[in-house]
Amino acid sequence: MAFQQDIQIGVLGGGQLGRMLLQAAIDFNLELHMLDPDPQAPCHQLASRFTPGALTDYETVLAWGQPFDVITIEIENVNVDALRELERQGKKIYPQPDVIALIQDKRTQKQFYQERGIPTAPFILTENRQEVSEHLHFLPAMHKLGREGYDGRGVQKIGGKADLHKAFDKPGLLEKLIDFEKEIAIIVARSSTGEVKAFPAVEMVFHPEHNLVEYLFAPASLQQHISRKAEEIALKVAQELNIIGLLAVEMFVTHQGDVLVNEVAPRPHNSGHQTIEANYSSQYEQHLRAILGLPLGDTACKLPSAMVNLLGEAGHSGPARYAGLEQVLELSGVHIHLYGKKITKPFRKMGHVTIVDSSPERLREKARFVKDTLKVIA
Amino acid sequence: MAFQQDIQIGVLGGGQLGRMLLQAAIDFNLELHMLDPDPQAPCHQLASRFTPGALTDYETVLAWGQPFDVITIEIENVNVDALRELERQGKKIYPQPDVIALIQDKRTQKQFYQERGIPTAPFILTENRQEVSEHLHFLPAMHKLGREGYDGRGVQKIGGKADLHKAFDKPGLLEKLIDFEKEIAIIVARSSTGEVKAFPAVEMVFHPEHNLVEYLFAPASLQQHISRKAEEIALKVAQELNIIGLLAVEMFVTHQGDVLVNEVAPRPHNSGHQTIEANYSSQYEQHLRAILGLPLGDTACKLPSAMVNLLGEAGHSGPARYAGLEQVLELSGVHIHLYGKKITKPFRKMGHVTIVDSSPERLREKARFVKDTLKVIA
Repeated sequence: MAFQQDIQIGVLGGGQLGRMLLQAAIDFNLELHMLDPDPQAPCHQLASRFTPGALTDYETVLAWGQPFDVITIEIENVNVDALRELERQGKKIYPQPDVIALIQDKRTQKQFYQERGIPTAPFILTENRQEVSEHLHFLPAMHKLGREGYDGRGVQKIGGKADLHKAFDKPGLLEKLIDFEKEIAIIVARSSTGEVKAFPAVEMVFHPEHNLVEYLFAPASLQQHISRKAEEIALKVAQELNIIGLLAVEMFVTHQGDVLVNEVAPRPHNSGHQTIEANYSSQYEQHLRAILGLPLGDTACKLPSAMVNLLGEAGHSGPARYAGLEQVLELSGVHIHLYGKKITKPFRKMGHVTIVDSSPERLREKARFVKDTLKVIA
Repeated sequence: MAFQQDIQIGVLGGGQLGRMLLQAAIDFNLELHMLDPDPQAPCHQLASRFTPGALTDYETVLAWGQPFDVITIEIENVNVDALRELERQGKKIYPQPDVIALIQDKRTQKQFYQERGIPTAPFILTENRQEVSEHLHFLPAMHKLGREGYDGRGVQKIGGKADLHKAFDKPGLLEKLIDFEKEIAIIVARSSTGEVKAFPAVEMVFHPEHNLVEYLFAPASLQQHISRKAEEIALKVAQELNIIGLLAVEMFVTHQGDVLVNEVAPRPHNSGHQTIEANYSSQYEQHLRAILGLPLGDTACKLPSAMVNLLGEAGHSGPARYAGLEQVLELSGVHIHLYGKKITKPFRKMGHVTIVDSSPERLREKARFVKDTLKVIA
């Protein structure tokens, strides 16, 4: 496909991922049109056209999608039937509606891994809380809602019988608790031309309570054979899904050196923010290249990096202020990304900070300093 | 000054430099309001507010400037009297009106260097063409218009008597032709807090005919003592001007190892584009930090880089197309910046390409390939 500047591109979702996608699109002089239910979403002032509306409503998505040549997503909780109809009308929907549908439900996602021989933690499908209680032998496990889990919601640890009340009373799955050594993610890009490239693995550090990524190091420090295995698995998932666009593959590395797929996201991902500063091509540029059939960019790291999510401070709700910003800006190699959300709430993703540094030790120190110093308060 | 997200910032000019400044402002969640005479200027869709209007008109600038706390520029050909009045009203004008006024006229600029002991090529002020003809002994020389020269306009080489008809018949200066080994530039940032930092020197390669930068390498390959001398001179110019904001200092390095200031620009500069991909902080982020009194960023290079300007192809005028873009995107480490100008004209700056690569040899090869391959045509 020859590069057309006037191609009309629609994006479902106008959050921070869409905002960084917009930033990448400026350099290609591409206009992105976004749909998002929140009229104050991070893209609302920056999108070439911003439409407030429900992503999950068939008629809304179908009507909104009419003017576009290519439609993509920055969140997977969208109306797939409308996308199927838009695809039938001849529009390019990347990632494809069938891929989004499969990934939207963690149950079909897990079954897909099982069918395709992709290593993943053992699991049992459950229809309701009662069924969970019938599998005490399988505990400790994570109970995951099939649909609409996101950012730590829809996941509960069921350690034993005493935790059964926490189980969801809706279709879900019990997943064997993995005593993992590391959690990593690899973002794969697959172009409409069939070209495929993987970014180097990144290593996630989770907040002990809130089940949100607290900070992230890239590239992950892995033995070479583990790193190779993880990349092969991530590429295999993308190939088996036949996805066009980005696929973020989250994986566990066990103490035995096994690599198990946890879950995937068919879009730019929190674990790829640092590619803006730290890699030859960012995940956002890569996503645009992939869905437009342009050659994929070099995914290598320029330098090691760390990424700290800026979450709304507990106990603070209201217009956001950023305490400690100046101290953080004094550090070398720090880059601040604020998402333009006017209102902070506890644990809301308000921005992130990327740090690049040739020394992994300094990176860890700086990440810790940023986390301890920069607070989003009201 | 504590970081205020709701600070109102006005920018005189809405061209490509303003566009990249806007891109940097997004990450700080800062809104920029631009004034530019061209209703289709590169910022017209991206600015938080875009006002079409003459930058050189007193009343226009004065009225436009009323809502802002801080006003900056992305082009120096602006009405300084209006800025002085806005400053008198209590607004922060960075760079300061007196600095802009001094730099607007190459004659006062040169006199300033002379008075402050800043090395620069010997020169003679001339009022008209007749006066140029009275200085045949001083030739070969460059004749420069005092005011309104920009991007290669307002400069003529006067090799000898036969070239006298090319001299400007307006106030200007004759500058001794410097048989330089290299032309370099150093961008200095000076914050409202007084903090000062210099980016590493970059080396410019000019198009033999059009007197526009053709490509650029960073960091410049200079002997250490030359590099140190150049940085000292650039910092001295910024300090003597007392400027707040960015100052791009273009310098000649002679075969004898002298470093002479050619001219300066009080704003982000074409010679700093590559800092977006290749340095820890970009010149655009640095400018924002400087005018907002935030700590200045680390100016060091992450990797060596080259920057190729994308100029409108000779013989092509009309809606722009970008031939060869896909081939260029196949190269590793290439980042395209299109400026969003719909219409191309011969030698119009339509975009640029940054290349980062750890090998200076590959950088030169890739820069050459980009220059030979990517053409802006109509």
